[in-house]
Amino acid sequence: MFTINPINKNCLSEIQQVIDTKTKPLGALGQLENLAKQLTLIQSQNSDTATVQVTVSKPTMIVFAGDHQIAQQNISIAPSDVTRQMVLNFLNCGAAINCFCRTNQIDMKVVDAGIISPLTLEEKTLSDNFYEQRLGAGINDISIKSAMDETQVKQGLLYGKEIVTDVINQGCNILLLGEMGIGNTSSAAAILMAYAQKSVDECVGNGTGINSEQLNVKKQLVEKAVARLNQATVLSDPLYVLKELAGFEIVQMVGAILTAAEQGIALLIDGFIVTSAALIAVKINPNVRDYLIFAHQSNENAHQLMLAMLDAKPLLNLDLRLGEGTGAALALPLLRAAASFYNDMASFESAGVTV
Amino acid sequence: MFTINPINKNCLSEIQQVIDTKTKPLGALGQLENLAKQLTLIQSQNSDTATVQVTVSKPTMIVFAGDHQIAQQNISIAPSDVTRQMVLNFLNCGAAINCFCRTNQIDMKVVDAGIISPLTLEEKTLSDNFYEQRLGAGINDISIKSAMDETQVKQGLLYGKEIVTDVINQGCNILLLGEMGIGNTSSAAAILMAYAQKSVDECVGNGTGINSEQLNVKKQLVEKAVARLNQATVLSDPLYVLKELAGFEIVQMVGAILTAAEQGIALLIDGFIVTSAALIAVKINPNVRDYLIFAHQSNENAHQLMLAMLDAKPLLNLDLRLGEGTGAALALPLLRAAASFYNDMASFESAGVTV
Repeated sequence: MFTINPINKNCLSEIQQVIDTKTKPLGALGQLENLAKQLTLIQSQNSDTATVQVTVSKPTMIVFAGDHQIAQQNISIAPSDVTRQMVLNFLNCGAAINCFCRTNQIDMKVVDAGIISPLTLEEKTLSDNFYEQRLGAGINDISIKSAMDETQVKQGLLYGKEIVTDVINQGCNILLLGEMGIGNTSSAAAILMAYAQKSVDECVGNGTGINSEQLNVKKQLVEKAVARLNQATVLSDPLYVLKELAGFEIVQMVGAILTAAEQGIALLIDGFIVTSAALIAVKINPNVRDYLIFAHQSNENAHQLMLAMLDAKPLLNLDLRLGEGTGAALALPLLRAAASFYNDMASFESAGVTV
Repeated sequence: MFTINPINKNCLSEIQQVIDTKTKPLGALGQLENLAKQLTLIQSQNSDTATVQVTVSKPTMIVFAGDHQIAQQNISIAPSDVTRQMVLNFLNCGAAINCFCRTNQIDMKVVDAGIISPLTLEEKTLSDNFYEQRLGAGINDISIKSAMDETQVKQGLLYGKEIVTDVINQGCNILLLGEMGIGNTSSAAAILMAYAQKSVDECVGNGTGINSEQLNVKKQLVEKAVARLNQATVLSDPLYVLKELAGFEIVQMVGAILTAAEQGIALLIDGFIVTSAALIAVKINPNVRDYLIFAHQSNENAHQLMLAMLDAKPLLNLDLRLGEGTGAALALPLLRAAASFYNDMASFESAGVTV
């Protein structure tokens, strides 16, 4: 379904040379230099020489929303109704992600990947940026049974592919992903636990802020979900993990990530939930990793474990625990800054600075 | 010379209430919530109620440049000539700080606070944003004698006051500070060591990247500089510390910080050198602390020690070791994001989201 090339690193030493002749001490821009290198490599794929102009073109945030039946077991700070209410809040431009996309000049699209009740016709007209790509009315309770069936997995990947192909055709070359779904940290924690083979205490956290009683129930349910699985199949078949544990928003994000990598554009990955989608995308095809930029480390402790599995050093650490793509939107200016220093900073020679 | 009011915190609970009714879990925006609180408090000083519109108006970066005679002892990666060359690079828009100010829409001004050779008439016309505020041709070698005399300290504070008064009159309500000066981490390290009473190993670092031999010499020189001082006077008189250890760029930044606090606007503090100026400003008047936002933790280990003395948790940690104000410029979008969520995010009530 996806053909993803390993990134061509032929011009890495050329890029390093450009960075090292800029008017600054060697390596003095720290993590921003790695970011510039990665962006330049990604944007130099069709040539044997490094691009001289890295661009951040029409950066687009797609927020995928989906519901989780497991939320009926009182393991979230809010009922599933809130998923739908927040989708409307996104369309009315009232959520945190709307604010951050606005201040950082990021286009934003909202996808109903499978919330419990679809929007009414009138609600859908609130915004041109709403996409209805429903896979169902929320995934099944994963502590009891498979989240979805194989058809839904395939359709979910396809939906992700369609919308990302669309935004790339509109000129986007940096894709940002966000999500909304009451109960979806349970799916992400279960995915982590299935792959990491760590204890439930290490994989399950407070999400957006549940109490200790709810946390205990959440741990039991996630443990049950993972106990249902065939461990050999987990390791051999990422689509099985999607079918068993993923939310509708997660499966569509996996399709989105695979498509962006296939098309050779950079992805800015948000927090715990989006990273769980990235983890599965990398299991499907390890070449995906080259296209991933990790925006932030969330306040969810298990996120650190997930980032380590992906050998990722995120750009920000602001104790966020909101989701929606907020961490990714906040990190975008750093990509612009990295591109700008690579493109526009003087060299020692051009500036007449003696080394 | 400066009258700085303690910040009025009367409307803190009102601000907290506004933040807590936004459509997000309590505290879910982490450090951004503290930032929004601080900005709102600072901008609500002339009223008993919290402002409803936090603004980031004409954010302005002032880069102060000055030379250090101690650099003649081969303790930097570059000779003092580079300070002047980099000033020209700033005026030609070729430095990292130019790139980051451009991508993040920050006005930028450059001050010759006392580099070795002044710019020529022709060079000065390169930019309208150049200010000549020379206190001398570089400070004395602090390992041997006082950096400057009392008259220079007073004139330096005054210069800082004049330029900041000017930018505030032009509508700036967020001041960003940066610096350039070959050898100036030695001054900053000596200031830290004088106040922190920690070992030279804890206070002196690699700066922009010197080798271990140079580092050893640098440690000896900083130790000599601090050994010259009367410890009782250090603790009782911050102007004495300025006179003995500060660079011309540091003393002007202290004046700038005191003025911004006096005028009640927020300051975005950069790395090791700017933080040393902030430390002295807080010693002169502890009320200053309320107006300081710390942009980033630099790669210089001693910066952490300095930040701890100021009870500061910086926004970014990107392993930068460049100075120029680059960390502050990179952090500015987070202030815009904090203002935006405070101003524009829907409340649970307005969005019809059930808590």
